[in-house]
This record gives sequence, C-alpha cells and structure tokens, in this order.
Amino acid sequence: MLSLKHLQINSFNENLAYINRECAAYKVDDIKTLTKVEIHGGVKPVFAFLQVVDDPKLVKPDELALNTEAFELINLPEGANISLSISSPPASLNSIRRKIGGNILNGGEYSSIINDIAAKRYSNMDIAAFLVSSGSFMTAPEVLSLTEALVGDYTLNWDNESIVVDHHCLGGVPGNKTDIIITAIVAAYGLPMPKTASRSLTSCAGVADTFSVLANVDISEEKFRSLIRENRGAIACYDSLPIAEANKILSSVERYIGLTQHQQLVASILAIKLAAGVTHLVLDIPVGPQSRIKSTNEAMRIRKLAEYVGDMLSLEIDAVITDGSEPIGNGIGAVLEARDVMKVLRNKEDAPQDLMEKSLFLAGRMLEFDPKLRGGQGYHVAKEILQSGRALETINKIIYAQGKSAQPQLGHLTRDIVSNVSGVVESIDNERINKIGVLAGAAQYHGAGLDLLKKVGDRVEQGETLYRIHSVNSSDFAFANSVVDGYTGYEISTKGGY
Amino acid sequence: MLSLKHLQINSFNENLAYINRECAAYKVDDIKTLTKVEIHGGVKPVFAFLQVVDDPKLVKPDELALNTEAFELINLPEGANISLSISSPPASLNSIRRKIGGNILNGGEYSSIINDIAAKRYSNMDIAAFLVSSGSFMTAPEVLSLTEALVGDYTLNWDNESIVVDHHCLGGVPGNKTDIIITAIVAAYGLPMPKTASRSLTSCAGVADTFSVLANVDISEEKFRSLIRENRGAIACYDSLPIAEANKILSSVERYIGLTQHQQLVASILAIKLAAGVTHLVLDIPVGPQSRIKSTNEAMRIRKLAEYVGDMLSLEIDAVITDGSEPIGNGIGAVLEARDVMKVLRNKEDAPQDLMEKSLFLAGRMLEFDPKLRGGQGYHVAKEILQSGRALETINKIIYAQGKSAQPQLGHLTRDIVSNVSGVVESIDNERINKIGVLAGAAQYHGAGLDLLKKVGDRVEQGETLYRIHSVNSSDFAFANSVVDGYTGYEISTKGGY
Repeated sequence: MLSLKHLQINSFNENLAYINRECAAYKVDDIKTLTKVEIHGGVKPVFAFLQVVDDPKLVKPDELALNTEAFELINLPEGANISLSISSPPASLNSIRRKIGGNILNGGEYSSIINDIAAKRYSNMDIAAFLVSSGSFMTAPEVLSLTEALVGDYTLNWDNESIVVDHHCLGGVPGNKTDIIITAIVAAYGLPMPKTASRSLTSCAGVADTFSVLANVDISEEKFRSLIRENRGAIACYDSLPIAEANKILSSVERYIGLTQHQQLVASILAIKLAAGVTHLVLDIPVGPQSRIKSTNEAMRIRKLAEYVGDMLSLEIDAVITDGSEPIGNGIGAVLEARDVMKVLRNKEDAPQDLMEKSLFLAGRMLEFDPKLRGGQGYHVAKEILQSGRALETINKIIYAQGKSAQPQLGHLTRDIVSNVSGVVESIDNERINKIGVLAGAAQYHGAGLDLLKKVGDRVEQGETLYRIHSVNSSDFAFANSVVDGYTGYEISTKGGY
Repeated sequence: MLSLKHLQINSFNENLAYINRECAAYKVDDIKTLTKVEIHGGVKPVFAFLQVVDDPKLVKPDELALNTEAFELINLPEGANISLSISSPPASLNSIRRKIGGNILNGGEYSSIINDIAAKRYSNMDIAAFLVSSGSFMTAPEVLSLTEALVGDYTLNWDNESIVVDHHCLGGVPGNKTDIIITAIVAAYGLPMPKTASRSLTSCAGVADTFSVLANVDISEEKFRSLIRENRGAIACYDSLPIAEANKILSSVERYIGLTQHQQLVASILAIKLAAGVTHLVLDIPVGPQSRIKSTNEAMRIRKLAEYVGDMLSLEIDAVITDGSEPIGNGIGAVLEARDVMKVLRNKEDAPQDLMEKSLFLAGRMLEFDPKLRGGQGYHVAKEILQSGRALETINKIIYAQGKSAQPQLGHLTRDIVSNVSGVVESIDNERINKIGVLAGAAQYHGAGLDLLKKVGDRVEQGETLYRIHSVNSSDFAFANSVVDGYTGYEISTKGGY
C-alpha cells in the first residue's frame, strides 16, 4: 500500500504516476521502459504512465504521486491508501494491429477502441497508432461505426424541438467565420441553433476562438440549454460541454501530429453534432487548390460519405460544396475575424462582401430546413433578417447572455507586406497565408493574425500594401517576418487586359 | 530568461519541461494542448514537451524545470539562464504524411526522419505515427534506406579484423538461447564475436536478460574492445553501447505499442549489427505456426530482403530457416534458460538436446565464414569444441572477464500444470507459452518463467506434470494462474499408434 500524493503538474490529457525509485513495495529498477499501470483504491482503477522519481522531496518511497489529470480521476484525498499493478495492454489494441494489416474492423471493434480511449487505457502513442492505422483507408461502414462509437452514451436534448440546426465547415479557408453570422440570422428567425464550436486545431483561429473575442464561450450544459430557450441561438466551446469525450482525446493527438484523414474528420464532426442533439446540419465543404479539400471529386466523396453516415444515424445533412480558392473576408486571426463578423452584422459599408454573401447563402440553406419555408426563399429571408438589423440585435443578446468578453487588443507589432510590382491580384495561397498567420502567433494569441487589404481581382500598385502582419509576441513576429520574405502567398499578374 | 531547475523525474526517453502557470515571461494559460518547446542556453537547443505546474514548490514562476532526460541533454548547472520558444514541427513529419498517403520515401527522407528522432525532435506519438505509417508497406530500397539511416554516424571498429561475426534470431520461439553457446564455441575457435544482445521486448527473456544471470552485460565500448582482444567473444547489452541510438528510441516505442513489422525488424537488426562493426552475420529465421514467422514463404521473403540490404551495405549474411514449431530447451525465463545453456556447455546428460543441436548447427554455419574451413566441416568442428570442454572453458573466461553476476534466485511461487489425460504431447503453442510466462512475471523478473518437463513427442500420463510455473511476485503468480486454466498451450494426443 502506498500513500496518495498530488503533484500539481498538468500533462494535457495524459495521466502520469510518479513513484520513488527506492519504493519498497515495487521493484522499480526492473522497470526499464514506458510502463502503463493501474492505480487501485478509488471507485474505478485509474490508468497512468509510470515516471520514476529520484528525489524524496517530490515523492517519498512510501508514496505514489499523481499528476493533476490522474488525481482528479481517482477522486481521493491526499494520504489515501492506494496500490498499483502493471496494466496489461487493452485487448482492443489487437484491432489496431488488424487495421495495420489492412483489415476492415467491425462496429464492436470500433466501439471497444473508443471505449478504451475514453477510459484512458490508451497512451497518446496508442492513439497515434490508431489514427495512422485507420488513416490509410476506412470503408463507409467503418466510418459509420467510428461515428457511432464517438457519439458515446451521453447526448444533449432540446425539450422536444423537432428541428435543431447547426452548421459546420470542413475548413482550410482562412478567415471563414460565417458561423457567428449564421447563428445570429437563424436564431433571429427562430430555429434553435446550439452551435458547438472548436478552438483552432491547425488554423489561425477556430470559431470558438473568434467568438471568445466577443463573448464567453465556456458554457455549461445547463447554461447552454437556458441560452437556447431564451435566444434560440448560442455558441459554446465543445470542450466545455460533457459530450463526445473520447473525440476530445483523439483531437488532442490529431492536433499534435497533424495527420487527420477525411474519414476521421467526417466521423468526428458528425459525432459532435449528434452528441449535441443536432437534427439538421449544413455541411460546408470548401474546395480550392490550397484548401483542405483540393478537388470537387474529393468533396463529392466526402459529401456522399457524410450523407450515408447521416442517413444511418438520423441526422439530416445538406452538404454544400463552396468556393475555397482564397481566404474569406479580410481578417485572419480571432480579433480581426471578429471585427469582420461585426462589420457584416452591423451592415457596414466596408464589410467584406464575400463573407456576407457566403453567410447569407448558408443561413438560407439552414432556414429551408423549416418545412414552413418555400424552397428557394431561404436566402431572401436571411438577407432581410440581416439588413433589418434583427441579426445584429440577436447577436448582441447572445453576447450579453453568454457574458461579454474583455476584448483582447489587436497585436501592436505590425509589418506591411507590399507588392513589388503593379498589377492585379491573381491568387492568394490559403495554406501559405494560414502558415504565416500561425507563425505570427494567431493560433496562440487572439490579437495576432493577418489583415488582407487586397483580395483576388483587386488592382494593386507597386509599393501598395497587400496585407498587414499583427503579432503580440516579438519572437512570433520575428518568425513570421523571417519566412514571409520567401513567399508572401500572393501572385500578382502584370499582364495587361484587366 | 528563466532559471534552470532539475526535477529528478525519469520519463523513459521523453524530454519534459515544467513551467509554472504564473510564469511572467510566457502566457502559459494560452497553451491548451500538447506543446513541444525548444530550450535555449546550452550548446544545442533541447526539445521537450511542456507540462504546466501549479505548485511553486515544484517550479517557481521564474524557473523552468527539466526532467532527468532533458536536464542531462542541456548539460548546464541548476540556476543557469535559459529561455524557451515554441518548437515548430520537424519538416520530416511531412514525409510521414506522404507515407500514410501510400508513397515510397527516398533515402534522404528516411535519413531526415531518423536524424530528427535521434535529436529528440519527435514525440513518442510522432514515432508511433512513423512506425505505423511505414508498417503497412515498405519497398526493399526503403528498408535499405531505413537501415542506413539507423546505423547512424558512429560504428565500432575491431582493429582491422577482416571477419567479425555475430548471430541473430528473429524470435518468436520461447527458450531459444543458442547465442550464448554459439559465442562460446566461436570464440573458442578464434573468430571475433562481439555479440550485441537485447533485453526482452515482448518475450520472456532476451539474450541480454539470460546472460545477465551469469555475468554483467552492461559493457562500455572500451571494455567491449578489450574483452574481444582477450577472449575473442563477449556479450554486451546493446543499450549500454553508444551505437544506433535512434534505433533505441524507436525500439522503446515499438516495445510499448507492440506493432513491429518485419521490414522494420530487418532494418533494426541489420543496423545494430552494422553499427557494431559486424562483417558476417548468421540470421536465424524460425518458422512455425505460433512463431513470429508463420510460413516458409514469409521466411523466404525476409531472407531475400535481409540478403539484399546486406549486399548493399557489405554485410555478409547467411540466413537460415529453422524449425520454430515448439519452444527450444526446457527453461523459459532468464534463470531457467541460463540453467539450460550451462547444462549444454557442461555436456550434462540431461542437457536439452534440441538446444545443443541447434546451437551446434548455427555455430557451424558461423565457423564456415572462416575461409580456412572446408565447407560442411563447421558442425563437426563446433561439436568437437563443445564436447572437449573448450566451449565451457571459454564461457567461464568470458563470464569472469565481464564480471560474474550475483545469480538471481528462481521464483519460489510454483505451480505444476498437469495433464488431464494420458497420451503423447502433440504440440506446444509458442505464443501461449510465451504469454503465460510473461504473465508469470518473466519479462520483469529474471527468476520467473516456465520449466517445460515435457516436449513434443514425449509420452505423458494423466496427472503428470507438463510444465511448472515459477513466479517471484504473488500478483504475477495469480495472474498467470488465472489464465493458464483456460488453455495450457499443450495439445495431448490420446490416439493409439504411438
């Protein structure tokens, strides 16, 4: 028996257990490698990786310390009696071996894998192995199985609403923050839209990042429910809700290794929406040479896959393939994107027209989920709601109800990237722009990002600014500056005829 | 600038950096996920994963603490000024993405991946992604590239010896400890055999485990050299030698996730032998229904692959396909295997004949690397060396020179597994026997394992013992007992005619 101690260390999803090398109860010196242990004493065994400590000030020989993640799970006071045993690898790892061998896994296998991930029986390495093994191919029924498994056993419900809508964009297009505008329009119309939003994975800002500039997005389930009752719309960070927990663990590894495959992405998105109690989803699939989805064929395969999984799990999906050839709006990064969104909602003259038009188009598709609305009328109704100021009024109510943010400042370290020729902007490379934005610090600091002053088709004179880099932190600023000179992401055509 | 602190925590190959959440120099609260950082201040930047600490007794806001692995790498005293930056993912991760996409990687890509692994730029997750991505297929030139990369830039050299021999078995056959006997015979003959041995990966005992029962195997490079000069033979644990370092990191992840593919295995084995300065290798490929290699076709593919890589890198390989249908010898687990080995070397009457015959066969193949020996004479010369007692004399010299061990005790917790019918042992399942041995504690405790009293073809009466379980630790003993009753691994034929 060992005495429980809490070492206040956060390890981002991984449970760690610290044992003194001189521990009398276990032959620690025989442990030569990464070892997973089960810690007994709480209601359920807690799985953790063993770390060996040589300093009794950290952990005494008769103690076992846990990091914060594991300490919260075991839910016992310090000093409690606990014991440990070497954990045998979860049986579902055999399915991963089968997947590596090119086999198709069945529903029971996906369910076992995901249950083991949710129970923290997998290390991050095992999760990476799972992601990569299923990354090379998954059949449609496998994606269905994975989706069902990821939904888990707890879903939100919305007081017998027959239509609960949401929108999700597959990503890859910088600045594309239609979601907040859509939420305002749809809620103003009266359809319930409990929007679950994510923080940035690999982009400059996720919807949760951008809306957090305006309002609190860490919303409890209860609060989410009361917000929808009051205002019909709310935007909550998915991480703050008690749903699709295994998917959160998968995502943290996906984010780190950056290897998400389309099938996994579809399963993950649909699982979150199903767990959030959504019945009708508009799925935006932007296509462009430097978007996440490169070709219409690829987009069509994703659409068919999402429709198949949606049909099997009773989620109505309207998948729309949109133009992802250049960034949407002008701002990239949370503060700048929030600025664009508010310009559109305030019907400002300098509001980005592409952001407005795309938002109206998508909101229109969502409104048409309402059986009372005639086909083709969605866009016009959405436009009326926006132009009348009702969308602005609604977003202000939502912001107030969620709790207004102390708006972060735009980064003060700036540099203008200017054109070295006169001509017309021929293309803007999404991947390059995203990379420069991330290097400028956008994924970490809401105030960092890029402000695009020119878009495709705009006339530009030699020496005129194409975009402005904003950084919060001087090392990020230096980093972005060091790469931007190699290639700005803009192609300028100097041919005549424009 | 932060002040360096050492937290005496060992994390098995992963560098960890601990930062206080209130650290003034970095906005730690913005770090929401697994983050790799570069720590500056030493000769080279050190890469580490960030852990966030809430207790100033562990790490103060103006400190950055490193675990033991990272602290040793940065090689600065506590209190030194250091700084950190967010590390951008290594460029070679793109090659892993390409591999997942089904592409063939070139030599430069393998070299970049392995260099990044050696420099600790990869997390264990990234390494798992690499292993799994290349697990589905690798072409022969890819295996060559990986082998070359794994050899690294430091290899042992042996004073202009023109022939330096070693033996390696691909594994999967419990008890198969021919290596020690072969080393004794070959060294007695006079060929230099600097045997590099590994500890158990997934088996009950590696060669390094078994020989460590008899002698110290943690041998420095200098000592290894002097041992070979004196005695012509020595058995060193590969981990203790400064060679093929990236392969050690790969192995620790492979061992954990248990997903080694044959191509990776070939690259890893040949890289270690090349880095150890071996010129001539006998590669033993045991085939059996429950061996690692299941079919002769599979064994032939491995043989061709090893020969191709060997030819390209000037390593002479004699690959022999052997019988892996049942365990070799009687003991399984380090202490019991060492007992069998010494019985053979002492020419005891009860020495396991299969272990002796296989050792003579393989030693004979190795002796024939000597151009002075006539083809077909190897076996007879080996037998003469064994029977004359010269092999025993040599192993005793080697044990003495390496440092005799305080021989560990055989586990005192025992149970006899008896036959419930009378008949003849028809088969013994290697995988099952290995699993029961591992559960009995053999991979952790040298004194644990199984002692097989009956082998295939042996007559057994009802109630007679088939094998004896030995455990050191009562929880292992209980674990082994709980599974052995399900299936002992033995099939007994009760048909007549024997």
